[in-house]
Amino acid sequence: MNILVINCGSSSLKYQLIDMDGENAIAKGLVERIGIEGSRVKHETIGKEKQVIEEPMSDHRKALELVMGALVNPEYGAVKSLDEIGAVGHRVVHGGEDFSASVVIDEKVMKAIEKNIELAPLHNPPNIMGIEACQKLLPNIKQVAVFDTAFHQTMSPENYIYAIPYEYYEKHKIRRYGFHGTSHMYITNKTAEILNKNVEDINLITCHLGNGSSISAIKNGKSICTSMGLTPLEGLPMGTRSGNIDPAIVTFLMDKENLNTEEISNVLNKESGVFGISGVSSDFRDIEDAAADGNKRAQLALDIFEENVARFISAYMTEFKSIEDIDAIVFTAGLGENSPETREHIINKLSIFGLEIDENKNNVRGKETIVSSEESSSKVIVVPTDEELMIARDTLKLI
Amino acid sequence: MNILVINCGSSSLKYQLIDMDGENAIAKGLVERIGIEGSRVKHETIGKEKQVIEEPMSDHRKALELVMGALVNPEYGAVKSLDEIGAVGHRVVHGGEDFSASVVIDEKVMKAIEKNIELAPLHNPPNIMGIEACQKLLPNIKQVAVFDTAFHQTMSPENYIYAIPYEYYEKHKIRRYGFHGTSHMYITNKTAEILNKNVEDINLITCHLGNGSSISAIKNGKSICTSMGLTPLEGLPMGTRSGNIDPAIVTFLMDKENLNTEEISNVLNKESGVFGISGVSSDFRDIEDAAADGNKRAQLALDIFEENVARFISAYMTEFKSIEDIDAIVFTAGLGENSPETREHIINKLSIFGLEIDENKNNVRGKETIVSSEESSSKVIVVPTDEELMIARDTLKLI
Repeated sequence: MNILVINCGSSSLKYQLIDMDGENAIAKGLVERIGIEGSRVKHETIGKEKQVIEEPMSDHRKALELVMGALVNPEYGAVKSLDEIGAVGHRVVHGGEDFSASVVIDEKVMKAIEKNIELAPLHNPPNIMGIEACQKLLPNIKQVAVFDTAFHQTMSPENYIYAIPYEYYEKHKIRRYGFHGTSHMYITNKTAEILNKNVEDINLITCHLGNGSSISAIKNGKSICTSMGLTPLEGLPMGTRSGNIDPAIVTFLMDKENLNTEEISNVLNKESGVFGISGVSSDFRDIEDAAADGNKRAQLALDIFEENVARFISAYMTEFKSIEDIDAIVFTAGLGENSPETREHIINKLSIFGLEIDENKNNVRGKETIVSSEESSSKVIVVPTDEELMIARDTLKLI
Repeated sequence: MNILVINCGSSSLKYQLIDMDGENAIAKGLVERIGIEGSRVKHETIGKEKQVIEEPMSDHRKALELVMGALVNPEYGAVKSLDEIGAVGHRVVHGGEDFSASVVIDEKVMKAIEKNIELAPLHNPPNIMGIEACQKLLPNIKQVAVFDTAFHQTMSPENYIYAIPYEYYEKHKIRRYGFHGTSHMYITNKTAEILNKNVEDINLITCHLGNGSSISAIKNGKSICTSMGLTPLEGLPMGTRSGNIDPAIVTFLMDKENLNTEEISNVLNKESGVFGISGVSSDFRDIEDAAADGNKRAQLALDIFEENVARFISAYMTEFKSIEDIDAIVFTAGLGENSPETREHIINKLSIFGLEIDENKNNVRGKETIVSSEESSSKVIVVPTDEELMIARDTLKLI
């Protein structure tokens, strides 16, 4: 069966059509600038030439129509008709406390996703638009919602309640939710497979390091804590996000720079992180290049990032009884998979715990590899993430 | 020589007169409600009966006049005349980047303290009032400023630069400063003495746990990182302070509850922490009692506090090469000195690192004691803090 995986942003849409028999993507693509001048679909059917379809798109429905058209195009398409799509899996960012697993979408589910708009005002609305467009274009097949927050719903209150007045949790549901759940779940399952263990028995610290970054402690296959919070701003410094700062900085800057809540949110989400420190770029490769050229603020940005990752890993070790109980520290996502230097620096900062990288094994990019030395107290593993495949698997399981 | 130590709050003033020959306090007291109806001095000359002097005090100068009067009172005073006071040491909260050590106060110093008002708008102004009042009342003796931030000025940029636009550091000096420096410094020196080591060789993780709490990593006797930041709001959840939260919560709550910057600051500084979670009290003893009576939110508050302390200790371990390199984990201040349960719970959460409490030795309150077991990978020590004595020592050294 072929499953279509959809990930809608406010003006973009990523898709993959996956043949679940061999779990292979047979087509994939990206729609950019939806509702903006210059909109286009970049489509690729695996094994055929890439296409760029430039056409005005007023909304996500029009964008999805063009995607469907590309998928069944006689020349560069992947299937003969839309009947060959068995189901659609949607990435939905915020499931709040309503969803601890993926779910077949019905009216009740839609209402709950809408309710959670207030927790993710930038993300849930385009997710809803994508679902509604698919319902209209593919009215006879099942749609499944896969939530970024769901995997972390196993956290206990010690790990999700903030030290603010409790009434704000009761009234506004302000708590830690965590994100990148689909990725943390995928690499948890994949690592269990690699280590030949039951997922129910596996203990990990999973590091999803990319433009957005989060770290999770995984005990017996379940997420017990994670570094992102109410929103994806909390935790590590990221490409353009501040991560943890003195909360007083928010109001201090608002007063000093005369910013309103939306403006300071933009500063902390879009102008901060390693970009804010370095002034160079939000892309770690650019920052590494600048640092190599002697740019001190670029070096500082890398040092701060790596120090914070090491400290989060270290902090989450307290969840386990012994270092040998931790089956592995796992690195994934853009930076985690592709930067041997970042991994090496982070693990070197953890030498106090007996963790040790093998420089040769670690010289790898985007490939499933055990990169720790034989002497390391716990394994260090690179596991490429595949959120689309995870969404497709959950979708197949549910229909 | 007798040194008078002064610690001025906005409407309060604490003082101690210390005889530096034996480092003994010979008198101490507290002025409450300065500028408010019902103001009073609670004075005690050691060995004599405690006094309460109720009298209107419009400002800190009037309060200090009454304190001087009490000190030389023929009946309940401690000295015959003010000539017996050799110098005054003032606690000053925020020294910004201007002061990395204590300093004899002159006009230039006063200007720098005034400049740093913007970093500590609630604290530096009453500190200045206290200094000015003493200059008028005791014009012929030297005054010394001892800064809460000074001890942490040895941090390197990786540990004090936030992942926000770098220009805000250059323009507004937004960076991590850290507080409780006098206490962290005192217990660092004291622990070196206890362990019979040179302070330049000592490595510690110092935990000042009280109504305000902070943790520092001490390497070779110097503070290399600390949990408080630009302000004393950052880091651990405290009596009424939130500590680290998703920075997005600040703006989220401002929007939801229609709060301005001052109002949300009040929520995070005065209504949050273990008080906010439990709804019971900001006093850990009350919360422990409530938890013992089955109050679940009180128990949750304690669990969250202890978990966060353990995670900070763990995170700071990455600064050292081996656990044996850490001479001790040190507990001090109200809670750190007086709650065996809190210490035990925290150290139990760190069992992965081989830390182990000795239940019998740990059954101690406010007394210098090694409370770890013989098998513990690093020592755990209770060291009562004495910020006043530290201020007096620095003052003596400088005059």
